[in-house]
Amino acid sequence: MKITRMQVTPEAFPDPPLRNSSGCHEPNALRTIVQLHTDDGLVGLGETYGGSGPLDALEAVREVVEGADPWRLEPLRQQIENPRTFAAIEVACLDLIGKATGRPVCDLLGGKVRHPIEFAAYLFYKFDCDDWGEALTPAAMLEQAKRFVRDYGFRALKLKGGVLPPDEEIESIRLMRREFGPDFRLRLDPNAIWSVETSIRVTKALEGDLEYMEDPTRGQEGMAEVARSVNTPLSTNMCVVRWDQIPSAVQMHAVDVILSDHHYWGGLIASKQLAKLCQVFGLGLSIHSNSHLGISLAAMVHLASVTPHLNYACDTHYPWIKEDVIRGGKWRFTEGCLTVPDAPGLGVELDEAKLAQMAEEYVRCGLTKRDDVGSMRRFVPDWEYVNPRW
Amino acid sequence: MKITRMQVTPEAFPDPPLRNSSGCHEPNALRTIVQLHTDDGLVGLGETYGGSGPLDALEAVREVVEGADPWRLEPLRQQIENPRTFAAIEVACLDLIGKATGRPVCDLLGGKVRHPIEFAAYLFYKFDCDDWGEALTPAAMLEQAKRFVRDYGFRALKLKGGVLPPDEEIESIRLMRREFGPDFRLRLDPNAIWSVETSIRVTKALEGDLEYMEDPTRGQEGMAEVARSVNTPLSTNMCVVRWDQIPSAVQMHAVDVILSDHHYWGGLIASKQLAKLCQVFGLGLSIHSNSHLGISLAAMVHLASVTPHLNYACDTHYPWIKEDVIRGGKWRFTEGCLTVPDAPGLGVELDEAKLAQMAEEYVRCGLTKRDDVGSMRRFVPDWEYVNPRW
Repeated sequence: MKITRMQVTPEAFPDPPLRNSSGCHEPNALRTIVQLHTDDGLVGLGETYGGSGPLDALEAVREVVEGADPWRLEPLRQQIENPRTFAAIEVACLDLIGKATGRPVCDLLGGKVRHPIEFAAYLFYKFDCDDWGEALTPAAMLEQAKRFVRDYGFRALKLKGGVLPPDEEIESIRLMRREFGPDFRLRLDPNAIWSVETSIRVTKALEGDLEYMEDPTRGQEGMAEVARSVNTPLSTNMCVVRWDQIPSAVQMHAVDVILSDHHYWGGLIASKQLAKLCQVFGLGLSIHSNSHLGISLAAMVHLASVTPHLNYACDTHYPWIKEDVIRGGKWRFTEGCLTVPDAPGLGVELDEAKLAQMAEEYVRCGLTKRDDVGSMRRFVPDWEYVNPRW
Repeated sequence: MKITRMQVTPEAFPDPPLRNSSGCHEPNALRTIVQLHTDDGLVGLGETYGGSGPLDALEAVREVVEGADPWRLEPLRQQIENPRTFAAIEVACLDLIGKATGRPVCDLLGGKVRHPIEFAAYLFYKFDCDDWGEALTPAAMLEQAKRFVRDYGFRALKLKGGVLPPDEEIESIRLMRREFGPDFRLRLDPNAIWSVETSIRVTKALEGDLEYMEDPTRGQEGMAEVARSVNTPLSTNMCVVRWDQIPSAVQMHAVDVILSDHHYWGGLIASKQLAKLCQVFGLGLSIHSNSHLGISLAAMVHLASVTPHLNYACDTHYPWIKEDVIRGGKWRFTEGCLTVPDAPGLGVELDEAKLAQMAEEYVRCGLTKRDDVGSMRRFVPDWEYVNPRW
């Protein structure tokens, strides 16, 4: 089996004006779809971040990918030095191997140890633009949370914080705790916009209410300082996102939980290695999500199913998207969970019409990289990013 | 594909009276051969330690293995808690997957990044019993080393030390350095029989001559104390042989190099995870070997070929065995290297006649576990194990 052609398609699709500490999501989210065609007529699917950066990075490795054997991932990894670029290729290669052997990707990664896969709702303060309406108060956030619980069955809720003044975010969490009772798992992620002092104050105020506090403040030193003062575990998707950041994080006890993302860490096999490393060093593991389509979600579901050391429900941004490039429409959650596909490979196929439509949208919208600050200024013209804000 | 039958065969084969700090090898080395038969007529091969312990451990998991799908290794790993038992099963499952897909095991592990695989000679002080004769002086050890270099082309030499008084072992290394010149890589492994003081003295005396000193003294605390006083890297196959021993070793800088052994660490995939962990924490990696047959050697060769972070030539005890259970006779070294097989699976097949003959020998010899002290007393009746000896 040899890869004869790498097809790379930039995609854009509508994204609501979701708030975070850096501003607000653009009207379109961007993704890149990779199709690897082989000499025996198979097509393997991969997906990564969108815009010109990832596109250029994929183009730069075209000669390495075309002609390669999809089984021989280690030599490819050595040639594709950027782990983010490699991850998209690796997932497509695993899809190919699965299709060639008749095995779902989870079997290629050692077989399921968990099924179905539980996810956490991803709650955002937001501006109005859709049937979710505006959510810029604790009371409105509670309504959003209730709808996520009602419509999808989530029993774990992640609130993207760092948007309202900290006391209002404390109030948002407290309203949810009161509404959903003691068994719901709650998380808060202010994206490192708080000072160490504010981080300690908010975390202490919510002690016992959060399964973890995600990235309250910037940098491993700051996180370590917070960790020394609180009992709530600290998680990160910001200060430990590369292998070389692990030793110092371990040494200074900067975090308790790593939010893994196979798109960052160099693919599914590397993510399993990260999970083992976390297990060995007593770190928890969860899985990160942002605006993505159903191919990435398939990869995440397979990965979660084969990772023994996965201690928390996975994040999922997915319910916020309106449509997908995969055949049969969007993935459907049942009781907050997704089913691991049994079909060969990832178990998802492309809807070529949707692919073409989102590719047209990419050209039409003119975006080539995400700019949350610029997007925020459409709503608040003089808005500026400052850190720490509180 | 389903495993229908696990066939476990205890084997014994002649082993010379090789000395180490614990005494002397028995007249027979013991190994266990695993054959996994599947419903589609394939047979997967594995090999592990010999004697009653590993046999009993394998029998204890028979019900878990029989009926299992060889692709689904993670659920098997969870049920077979002992990593040593799991490793034998995992290698046999990988052999099956390779045979089912037409792929060599190296491709199942991500494809070769290194070829051929370089090994280090394994030099032993020894009693007479064969055409290698007695080697109980530095001069005799030099003759043994010269023969290994001449017959196999090794350019890395590991001396099993802890046998002669330390100054004679220093002299052995110096004779080799003088004979083979500055490009040969030399290692010394006294199996933790020295005090911290002796370890520091010997390592300092050989500074610049050793690529690493292996396990000079007992325990991570002792090793860390030695490490603080010397420049030569310290390696271990004794004080870091399980995952739970890693964090303290990292924290106290007890070792610089881990000698991995897939039989200890839970198989080939786990060994790749160990390699990644070593890379992340700046530890070197080498591969350990003891008395084993050609199935284990095949597994080691495939593993070495797919492990990017492998910094040293692998150990090999293999030249000391006279015969093997694999078809076509023993593996052959060229310029100290072995070729990674291209055939599906491990690329070795059983010689059923040899298998039966070594199984008869297992019954005949009556050994059920290794006893180096007892064996030593056949040569030196009042010999006792003391630690530290020097």
